Amino acid sequence: MATTKSPVVDIHTHVYPPSYIELLKSRDAIPYIRSFPPSPALRLVILPAEDTESTSRGRPVGPEYYDITKKIEFMDRHSIDVSVISLANPWLDWVPAAEAGKAAEGINNEVNEECGRYPGRLFAFGTLPLSGGKDVIVKEIARLKELKYMRGIILGTTGLGKGLDDLELLPIFQALQDAKLPIFLHPHYGLPGSVWGERANEYGHVLPLALGFPLETTIAVTRMILSGVFEKVPELQMILAHSGGTLPFLAGRIESCIEHDAHLKAEGKLGKGRKTVWDVLKKNIYLDAVIYSEVGLKAAIQASGQDRIMFGTDHPFFPPLEGENETWASVETNYEAIFGALGSGSDGALAALGGNAVRVLNLSI
Amino acid sequence: MATTKSPVVDIHTHVYPPSYIELLKSRDAIPYIRSFPPSPALRLVILPAEDTESTSRGRPVGPEYYDITKKIEFMDRHSIDVSVISLANPWLDWVPAAEAGKAAEGINNEVNEECGRYPGRLFAFGTLPLSGGKDVIVKEIARLKELKYMRGIILGTTGLGKGLDDLELLPIFQALQDAKLPIFLHPHYGLPGSVWGERANEYGHVLPLALGFPLETTIAVTRMILSGVFEKVPELQMILAHSGGTLPFLAGRIESCIEHDAHLKAEGKLGKGRKTVWDVLKKNIYLDAVIYSEVGLKAAIQASGQDRIMFGTDHPFFPPLEGENETWASVETNYEAIFGALGSGSDGALAALGGNAVRVLNLSI
Repeated sequence: MATTKSPVVDIHTHVYPPSYIELLKSRDAIPYIRSFPPSPALRLVILPAEDTESTSRGRPVGPEYYDITKKIEFMDRHSIDVSVISLANPWLDWVPAAEAGKAAEGINNEVNEECGRYPGRLFAFGTLPLSGGKDVIVKEIARLKELKYMRGIILGTTGLGKGLDDLELLPIFQALQDAKLPIFLHPHYGLPGSVWGERANEYGHVLPLALGFPLETTIAVTRMILSGVFEKVPELQMILAHSGGTLPFLAGRIESCIEHDAHLKAEGKLGKGRKTVWDVLKKNIYLDAVIYSEVGLKAAIQASGQDRIMFGTDHPFFPPLEGENETWASVETNYEAIFGALGSGSDGALAALGGNAVRVLNLSI
Repeated sequence: MATTKSPVVDIHTHVYPPSYIELLKSRDAIPYIRSFPPSPALRLVILPAEDTESTSRGRPVGPEYYDITKKIEFMDRHSIDVSVISLANPWLDWVPAAEAGKAAEGINNEVNEECGRYPGRLFAFGTLPLSGGKDVIVKEIARLKELKYMRGIILGTTGLGKGLDDLELLPIFQALQDAKLPIFLHPHYGLPGSVWGERANEYGHVLPLALGFPLETTIAVTRMILSGVFEKVPELQMILAHSGGTLPFLAGRIESCIEHDAHLKAEGKLGKGRKTVWDVLKKNIYLDAVIYSEVGLKAAIQASGQDRIMFGTDHPFFPPLEGENETWASVETNYEAIFGALGSGSDGALAALGGNAVRVLNLSI
């Protein structure tokens, strides 16, 4: 699908490097990897909703999770020239404080080395040792800046445990801004299980994945906006997973609710100097194109600008339920959304498919 | 703003008829109305987040809540020809079972009479006695069908207490389908407070109103889709508040998650006979235009079709924080979104402003 001249770059594609698999195998609480006898097959359980007898637990862990050659095969099959790989959720959020720095260093080095095996085809977002405390985190940011293939960091929504509107995060955001490392914001924790109702287990993983994930992202970035992060760290760059969760669609409502809130007005939080949601969308935020529809992608493009949209696949998740060696429908749907929204072969489509990522992430190919 | 020929119809506009005010005054748990000394002014508290010392409790209850002449003044000031009024949340969800039938009958009659005071300018969505049990509810549906100005019913997301994917609701949905009374689905309960984080009280009501409400609607209708309501009651008509919450933006992701869910496949829930989210959006769902942005409205239009969009205001909520007699910014924003998305004076804009509502709700003006 790529044209010969303009590269296709996948900025939303996950890896479980072998040392991360070993870390997960050593655990018996979420996230963990184990077999469920009588089957000897290893399964990965990362979501609370997956960890009950009522569902088949987790998902099979095949080589597409940890074998980087499978990533390259997947890229070739889907005409993807470059992937910016990132550790999958829940990253290192769960690592004991004393081990966090070492774990991040090991995994970031390993991912960087995987990129080095395919120069020009793989770059990466690093993982922060969030449980290690501010100094350990800032030190790892400085180290990541020097790793050859690192182009940003992937971040969940918990931050240091209190969410991304936690004032304690400001020095970390500042360090990322100074290092010019964008944050790839990605959900993991979803919403409390009670919101899905009594029949939720009849619906597989649809509700937490389709609704919980996007809302988690939206809540996290809205809390950042409301707490003033983007005024305090004005050049902070965020790439939002899943086209911003629901931010492009709800931006107008969020703005209206802010402008009509008596409490915010009384606190003097409206008016001069405030960045609106639209300002943040157009100045601080990039959106991936992992939205599976032209309708959603058009809203993302209109909200953020077609120079701020980046193709992604979410590999190795959402494989076909059968026919594993075929082209993946989940990937095709996102290609088609770009062609539908921007026109196949148009400058906008080429930018969304790869040009924007090359420019913003400084990918020398 | 209305053209002389084509009416402007507001389908999202709430009333607190005097008897409902009296019901709320008699209570001391949410929802309730009371004064907070030393001020003698009555205040309405309807959201849990409003009921804490850390916020100014609730909101002032002025005559725009209960005096129907204020609705007409508001309509005149904003060039609205017709309003389809509905009881505000949380309706009668909280009424003891034995009183539900009588409460609904009283309030529906009162609202119908208010409409009769301004023939051709006011129609209404009725309120169901949800706590009264199936027979009481179905009886009230039959009665509503005969009330001169009733054109549908307003419904929250709890149904009979277990959400809208509760099988016990099917006879009620069937009765609404048979009576050709659309459901105006409206949020109230939002999301559990824990999702807003420790600093939520610094942000006024922005997070629960801007994000909790739309997600509640999205979850409710997605659960209906997943439970097969729209296959079982195929002509059921729903009007979704706030342009569907986030449904237009997330429809692609929901569809993709359904199609890639091993559990749904194993249960035989994929394939033949299934209505997709897109099918439901284009056949069963109408969307109001209360989304406060052209970006969101365009997505709503593309998802559902421009013959399925209906202007609304959410009056008496979101008044200006000052200058009460001016034109409301919240209303202007929604007008501008329609003109921006469809073109001022275009057939699509006229349809969204009123033509669709006249046709779908059979408003004889």
